[in-house]
Amino acid sequence: MSAPTGRITAVDTYDIRFPTSRELDGSDAMNPDPDYSAAYVVLRTEGGGPEGHGFTFTIGRGNDVQVAAVDALRDHVVGRSVAGLCADPGSLYRDLIGDSQLRWLGPEKGVMHMAIGAVVNAVWDLAARCEGKPLWRLLADADPAWLVSQIDFRYLTDALTPEEALALLSKGKQGAAGRTAELLRRGYPAYTTSPGWLGYSDEKLTRLARQAVAEGFTQIKLKVGADLDDDIRRCRAARAAVGPGIRMAVDANQRWDVGEAVAWTKALAEFDPYWIEEPTSPDDVLGHAAVRRGVHPVKVATGEHVQNRVVFKQLLQAGAVDVLQLDAARVAGVNENLAILLLAAKFGVPVCPHAGGVGLCELVQHLSMFDYVALTGTTEDRVIEYVDHLHQHFLDPVVITDGHYRAPASPGFSSAMHRASIDAYTYPHGTFWAADAASGEPGTDTEVHA
Amino acid sequence: MSAPTGRITAVDTYDIRFPTSRELDGSDAMNPDPDYSAAYVVLRTEGGGPEGHGFTFTIGRGNDVQVAAVDALRDHVVGRSVAGLCADPGSLYRDLIGDSQLRWLGPEKGVMHMAIGAVVNAVWDLAARCEGKPLWRLLADADPAWLVSQIDFRYLTDALTPEEALALLSKGKQGAAGRTAELLRRGYPAYTTSPGWLGYSDEKLTRLARQAVAEGFTQIKLKVGADLDDDIRRCRAARAAVGPGIRMAVDANQRWDVGEAVAWTKALAEFDPYWIEEPTSPDDVLGHAAVRRGVHPVKVATGEHVQNRVVFKQLLQAGAVDVLQLDAARVAGVNENLAILLLAAKFGVPVCPHAGGVGLCELVQHLSMFDYVALTGTTEDRVIEYVDHLHQHFLDPVVITDGHYRAPASPGFSSAMHRASIDAYTYPHGTFWAADAASGEPGTDTEVHA
Repeated sequence: MSAPTGRITAVDTYDIRFPTSRELDGSDAMNPDPDYSAAYVVLRTEGGGPEGHGFTFTIGRGNDVQVAAVDALRDHVVGRSVAGLCADPGSLYRDLIGDSQLRWLGPEKGVMHMAIGAVVNAVWDLAARCEGKPLWRLLADADPAWLVSQIDFRYLTDALTPEEALALLSKGKQGAAGRTAELLRRGYPAYTTSPGWLGYSDEKLTRLARQAVAEGFTQIKLKVGADLDDDIRRCRAARAAVGPGIRMAVDANQRWDVGEAVAWTKALAEFDPYWIEEPTSPDDVLGHAAVRRGVHPVKVATGEHVQNRVVFKQLLQAGAVDVLQLDAARVAGVNENLAILLLAAKFGVPVCPHAGGVGLCELVQHLSMFDYVALTGTTEDRVIEYVDHLHQHFLDPVVITDGHYRAPASPGFSSAMHRASIDAYTYPHGTFWAADAASGEPGTDTEVHA
Repeated sequence: MSAPTGRITAVDTYDIRFPTSRELDGSDAMNPDPDYSAAYVVLRTEGGGPEGHGFTFTIGRGNDVQVAAVDALRDHVVGRSVAGLCADPGSLYRDLIGDSQLRWLGPEKGVMHMAIGAVVNAVWDLAARCEGKPLWRLLADADPAWLVSQIDFRYLTDALTPEEALALLSKGKQGAAGRTAELLRRGYPAYTTSPGWLGYSDEKLTRLARQAVAEGFTQIKLKVGADLDDDIRRCRAARAAVGPGIRMAVDANQRWDVGEAVAWTKALAEFDPYWIEEPTSPDDVLGHAAVRRGVHPVKVATGEHVQNRVVFKQLLQAGAVDVLQLDAARVAGVNENLAILLLAAKFGVPVCPHAGGVGLCELVQHLSMFDYVALTGTTEDRVIEYVDHLHQHFLDPVVITDGHYRAPASPGFSSAMHRASIDAYTYPHGTFWAADAASGEPGTDTEVHA
């Protein structure tokens, strides 16, 4: 544990891209060829003290725009007291979302908002390192009133007041020690998307689905939405592979209009899909409510592209979702996700976070574990998404045992990448990309031995 | 008229900023010190043929991020056939919003979406120049089926189908010749925000309000939301200055939560506000619906920060607005605004566009004039915002006579700035900013004699 001293001396940014499109990892109905990428941020401190690491996940082109957006925040961060930031990350969060000129580019959505998320998450990583705790534990140990102080309630008070948040967190503390022990013993339930990418053959899908069950997962997910006949064939194959006792979610990645979402989901009903994910635009609160009415008893899930707490609030107010899929890096970091977890708790909707991408599993596990230990107190009907690629680039990668995320023990937010990975995959001049360009042949090696 | 030939050879971008914060022009409860700026785009064509000009409006910091976002679109544009673009601007619009990697940064919102709007509007400027018509006339003369082909109906069909759009546009054509003559004779009604900036003294407010009425305006607007006592005093002074027959809108620029919006608006009711604008988050469809129920008979208006057609659709579906304030440069350009105009027409909600900023008046007048001539056929309860600064930087500035926008006659979208203005205000190396930095004293001269 390092006592926080000194000031932030630099905000270093890196445009990191992995050539995942060459293997069709991550392919779905809207994203046929993603190159999983990260606009990566390192907060440096005086005298080589602890660093803070954070990032925005993107799928390739535009990662440079994300880096430019983080660069535009630098003046808000450099020179800040490390002790002040660690004591109150919310002070920076509020300054960033409140910058009256930058706010015009949102407000609180898209490129600028995700850039704020990267910086804010880096601050929480720094705070947890300084505290000598994994982030989930820092949050679970925190005073409820302090957690409430980390939230911006603007635009929320018609659904959640600071007083209600305090009551939920105070109640959540009861029995936390027992749940911490249980979490350390058992981990947090996961489900896996790895079998179901749209670009995979039926053979690969079936093999990976069986393997997932053998590894202890009780839920898998399939991408759908490009072609109905293909979806029926793939769902049939997957259901046959896993048997009736395994939950099988399907994910349309925003491919449909409202009417189409209802019709297509009903056409898959015979395979007993557990939820339909992203049936339509993530902006369409009323549309999701209509889809939910239309596809019952199939559940409706969304969230990975939901831009901020205001839209999550409405999804809950409108009864538009059965499952809330927050993302660690889409919104403005831990502070905004605390608000979203509290909204979900208030409305009694389970949170099953989006993960995958680059490092999203590493980040989001901390939020769900905090939620279990010190907010909702349950993992019932709650699972964190798991995708099995790119973890090797992280210093503290997620560990999955018997279908559960193990609780991280290292201080921080599990957000730091290996220096060798950064050096290799920085675009376009890192060693991988430079060699790739020089060879004239696309490579697919995403393994880095760091 | 130049026959469109050849290809797009370059997409040139400029970070243009005006030091408006030094005079408190444009100040409001959320934006105390804007430096009105434009991320400006010029499409160059082969052989020095006609150019296309477009831009995103911002209020200062972050304009560089907007420029980076336009730069990220360049590969989609360079090399395209000019004739192909002019015949079907929608082909580029769909490619840009559909780029599967860039889409991750939205989808269809914030920095990337506004950048797409700048490029798409530049294409329409080019198309109108090639056609030898002002844009409003190109749109009003167009075949309804072609206009329908320019719209992306994804996520809209639960509220508006292509068939309904075609019917609205076909009906809108009836009597268009007479309305064109009337538009050329009388212009399109305007209202003015120039008296009501929050940073202005009561004396300046009163003087400018009287002047607005003397100039023929029948509606003014005041910024509110920072301090209730101040708002009461300013509304009283403005109402006394203009008398009871003039509409007086108030604008909170997203300052409030739902409950506060209702209470504050009611506290101003004795001054007979015509509408309350942006009472809360532009993302909060359900919140606006609640505010509208609470403040009746004061109307609710929003739109300048509404991110895309999906949110506008919901504002209409939920009965959340009395007045729809589209912006020419917030969404993905003319194509998306055609969808928004059609949605408003379908739901019978008047469109009173947001303008001001840099060049927003110049752009948006074309959309309202098309709406009048060839879609809704009326200007009843419809007014375009007018703000009286920065027009001198445009080659074809708006002309206001007796409280009306005159119909533009020059070919194009009125979007081109003077070369001298671009050279002076390009940040940070243009002649104005270089001299400003060298002098050590902030200047306020925003006049450029081009």
